[in-house]
Amino acid sequence: MKPETALQRGPNNPDPENPARRSLLVGSAGAMAAVSLLGFTPLARTEEPKSLPDYAAWKERNALIVHSANTMETRRGAIGNGVITPSDRLFIRNNLPAPPASVTEDPDIWEVRIEGVKNPRTLTVGDLKKMGVTTVASVLQCSGNDRAFFPHGASGTQWSVGAAGCIMWTGVPLKDVVEALGGPAEGARYITSTGGETLPDGLDPKTIIVERSVPTRAMQSALLAWEMNDKPLTHTHGGPLRMVVPGYYGVNNVKYVKNIAFTENQTDAKIQASGYRIRAVGVKGAPDQPSMWEMNVKSWVTAPLETARSGRNMIYGVAFGGTVALEKVDVSLDGGKTWKQARFLGPDLGPHAWRPFVMAAELPAGEHRIVSRATDTHGNSQPEGRIDNERGYGHNGWGDHGVTVTVS
Amino acid sequence: MKPETALQRGPNNPDPENPARRSLLVGSAGAMAAVSLLGFTPLARTEEPKSLPDYAAWKERNALIVHSANTMETRRGAIGNGVITPSDRLFIRNNLPAPPASVTEDPDIWEVRIEGVKNPRTLTVGDLKKMGVTTVASVLQCSGNDRAFFPHGASGTQWSVGAAGCIMWTGVPLKDVVEALGGPAEGARYITSTGGETLPDGLDPKTIIVERSVPTRAMQSALLAWEMNDKPLTHTHGGPLRMVVPGYYGVNNVKYVKNIAFTENQTDAKIQASGYRIRAVGVKGAPDQPSMWEMNVKSWVTAPLETARSGRNMIYGVAFGGTVALEKVDVSLDGGKTWKQARFLGPDLGPHAWRPFVMAAELPAGEHRIVSRATDTHGNSQPEGRIDNERGYGHNGWGDHGVTVTVS
Repeated sequence: MKPETALQRGPNNPDPENPARRSLLVGSAGAMAAVSLLGFTPLARTEEPKSLPDYAAWKERNALIVHSANTMETRRGAIGNGVITPSDRLFIRNNLPAPPASVTEDPDIWEVRIEGVKNPRTLTVGDLKKMGVTTVASVLQCSGNDRAFFPHGASGTQWSVGAAGCIMWTGVPLKDVVEALGGPAEGARYITSTGGETLPDGLDPKTIIVERSVPTRAMQSALLAWEMNDKPLTHTHGGPLRMVVPGYYGVNNVKYVKNIAFTENQTDAKIQASGYRIRAVGVKGAPDQPSMWEMNVKSWVTAPLETARSGRNMIYGVAFGGTVALEKVDVSLDGGKTWKQARFLGPDLGPHAWRPFVMAAELPAGEHRIVSRATDTHGNSQPEGRIDNERGYGHNGWGDHGVTVTVS
Repeated sequence: MKPETALQRGPNNPDPENPARRSLLVGSAGAMAAVSLLGFTPLARTEEPKSLPDYAAWKERNALIVHSANTMETRRGAIGNGVITPSDRLFIRNNLPAPPASVTEDPDIWEVRIEGVKNPRTLTVGDLKKMGVTTVASVLQCSGNDRAFFPHGASGTQWSVGAAGCIMWTGVPLKDVVEALGGPAEGARYITSTGGETLPDGLDPKTIIVERSVPTRAMQSALLAWEMNDKPLTHTHGGPLRMVVPGYYGVNNVKYVKNIAFTENQTDAKIQASGYRIRAVGVKGAPDQPSMWEMNVKSWVTAPLETARSGRNMIYGVAFGGTVALEKVDVSLDGGKTWKQARFLGPDLGPHAWRPFVMAAELPAGEHRIVSRATDTHGNSQPEGRIDNERGYGHNGWGDHGVTVTVS
């Protein structure tokens, strides 16, 4: 398989698996013209690494687009129609280099400090395993998934649609832990989780530490997870212990979590104070802007992607409601003029999981724009357009998520 | 990890992960005495192969007990508490050597002949993929799972509890295919599926071919599957196409299926006519004995298995109802004198799936016999004892399935 280049994943070609579009850009004068229009720095245009970094070597290489050693997404064609994303196809997005694999050698000795409760305490994973257990399916999605669709060239990893997956998490409900420690301290409005990465020397820790605050309402569904997809959580994905906040964007699911504090205010770490904030293009991040917490309703087609044979075809995709359960998905074969409700495929794994959908369709020869539009049980539907914002966060517009399929 | 021997998995030691019991047998005069009592042939007593056969090399070696190149089971301690069994931990039981891996290189060209319908036809997997799709979770379990518990030394692979797993299957509902072909021919009482293995020369095909008949009532839930756990079905587990009959014992889920016929009678292949028949010890198999079709209600504890620390412990296990949905699981910490209902863990994947269960328990120091007893929605509960039968099939007695845990 030919490695992709960062260029091929730019805004004009968010689907790196579309060779038709690729050929328009690569190895031609047009390529460089496109690059300069996009305003990428030269570093972003280097060749994609051919091999996976060591800590992710167990992943299915051909199912992934490797953006960098810290950022890999699932190819759109590898998302498939499964209720659960196989672990070796799940995207990776690390804000800092992962700790050594040795942290998961004896997961039960990993310690997490619980603060801002009546009786603060340091607990090992072994302790947590005796306090309670739950298994929850939820969508894990990077805030910047679909960033490549933004025409202003939002900075950050140029994700197509694959910085998302549906995962089965097992761990202790956070509320069980907090109840055992006497409940949250008075005035607590946020749950602030700190990652256990080793911070590079010579930099102000506040500018790089992974420390995220979510509102205390998240406690109803949050868990401290030690298993992913029915196996011990790998260090690749945050083992021995990860804060999981079902329905919330990926960054809030803090890996290698070493501290959880109930706090009156949000942390002033950069990743919270100015990072992961929705704001207009050109505006700097600030604490008064909306933080990337609850995910919105969303869907996208996963097959077919480029070409199909005329006649009966099965249109597949995935859809989810974020913190709200999914109600339905409609599919259009004519770019959104007419819609028909698709059928969900497989068991319902709960309100935070995604649901694969399928629709049989007769496709005549020609070019078809296939789009999907999900609606949650609160009546929220995906909008048609995108809401342009500086960092390209939270894009759930159905227009960009469609695929153009040539049927012959 | 030290390889197990076949000896260590004999009826007196069905749990090969119990080193306490192991030490009683291995390297002592008692070992040979035990062997002769069991009546095993010397061949069955050879060392377990250290490595996996090529076609299963992708499996998690440490999670498996390798009985032979065609038979591998999941260690009891690796079954865990997951709603789905990870593919690389799933047991393998092949009645014939697997076809070459090349059969799954282009799965869509694999052909299956459908006979005994109004309009018989040969269809490719590509054709089937356009006819319909469903995703179903179901337990896959060998008829002889738990054979090692039978004191008469039932012949066949000496499975402990690990010839079972819960799998997510994706494929076309068989009834969609049959409807498209005009429905079953008149008088059809069985669905007879034939495997596509290459048969060794010089033997009567009827004595070795994998060809199984199930009653037509199975059509309501049966599917022709091309995916397992949200990935293309490997040739290791029957890809490109496998007949899946949810709630039925493993042998009916014919791998590499190349022919499906609606028939008035059951096939006279040996595997159906005299194999997989429940009969008294010492009696030969015959067509008038019950065939291994619908599975019965069953459960077993998966943790703790041998030792635990005194105080609060989490008791884990798995339970399923076969073709009938599960109602509840009770757990006893005193060998069945008193019972308490356990809690199901994780989402309900449907009536044919297993459900992990968990119960928090205060365990004082001492030896504890922990047993579980499942009940289905028709009111069937696991019996205490085993029903002795020639080949050690269908064992769901809760007594043998318990574990003795030393708490200190």
